[in-house]
Amino acid sequence: MSCPGVGVSPGTIPVYHGTTSMASDRRVRVVELILRCLMCSLAVAAAVLVGTDSQVREIFGIRKAARFTDMKALVFLVIANGVAASYSLIQASRSIASMIRGNVLFSKPLAWAIFSSDQVMAYVMVAAVAASLQSAVLAKAGQPELQWMKICDLYERFCTQVGEGIACAVLVSIGAVASSGISAYGLFRLYGSSKGEARPSW
Amino acid sequence: MSCPGVGVSPGTIPVYHGTTSMASDRRVRVVELILRCLMCSLAVAAAVLVGTDSQVREIFGIRKAARFTDMKALVFLVIANGVAASYSLIQASRSIASMIRGNVLFSKPLAWAIFSSDQVMAYVMVAAVAASLQSAVLAKAGQPELQWMKICDLYERFCTQVGEGIACAVLVSIGAVASSGISAYGLFRLYGSSKGEARPSW
Repeated sequence: MSCPGVGVSPGTIPVYHGTTSMASDRRVRVVELILRCLMCSLAVAAAVLVGTDSQVREIFGIRKAARFTDMKALVFLVIANGVAASYSLIQASRSIASMIRGNVLFSKPLAWAIFSSDQVMAYVMVAAVAASLQSAVLAKAGQPELQWMKICDLYERFCTQVGEGIACAVLVSIGAVASSGISAYGLFRLYGSSKGEARPSW
Repeated sequence: MSCPGVGVSPGTIPVYHGTTSMASDRRVRVVELILRCLMCSLAVAAAVLVGTDSQVREIFGIRKAARFTDMKALVFLVIANGVAASYSLIQASRSIASMIRGNVLFSKPLAWAIFSSDQVMAYVMVAAVAASLQSAVLAKAGQPELQWMKICDLYERFCTQVGEGIACAVLVSIGAVASSGISAYGLFRLYGSSKGEARPSW
């Protein structure tokens, strides 16, 4: 009698729940790889757009410059995107290597390491985007109650470029959330029951 | 021949991987319940602390008031904590009900619903905390390059109370991240192999 959902591959390594699941695993792997490559490119674009942004204006004969370093949230955004780009590149390389080599033992410690780093990356990216969106709203609309004046009327080109950078970072954070979901799936199914026939009591 | 890790309970409902896993499931359920109750209390505290905060000062004979509505990020924080408190209360009630009733069928659609709403809650809380921390840093230190002056020297009591509220919200967001991890475990193990004997190929 065989156990439902636990098959053996034609090779020597047992494969865990049939050919349908193997095919869906391959699909997940390809989606993950595409996601990581897109995240890498977009994070580089976001970091470059915001990090190279500056505009000089002359106001009553005084030269004044706007730089991304004037706002701590934008510095945080550039650093977070730099880290996200490097991290996505490493993860994409790991993904390609495992696809080329074929069957690789997927250990729980490795799954935990990928899950944890993906979670940290996703939350850091969401925090960086939220903080820089808050700064962008202040720069665009000001906060008259606190005498914080809007600056985007003065530095229009600077604000537009920061906006483009934040838009890229929003896409990176969506990608980071999705890939953290994929790595959660990769980890926690290692703790699971066979094919959902079992019924936990909660 | 029995399948390894797939046992049958003394009752009529099959239980999925032995008594050790049942005991660990109960522990996870209790931890989740405690977490949700703590989150509910802390989210109420954060919403009340920030939402009721105001301070009136007289400057050169003119009465000026600081309120949480002066900063959009604080309004977002109050709303997010209100939602988190209600959501945690609903989830804690569901958890208590399932513990009282004993064995409840844990369906994939329900697991997906809990996982998705926990994910949304965690990311919304992290975003709200990041945005309000950014505002708090501006209020405390100002941004001289942009002529945004610090306001906490003027409204010290107001800033202290907002700080206490943000501290509570930071704890709520940590709780939300942890409970979203628990619900990811609850969902994705339903897609898993038995007891980690299988070796997926990635």
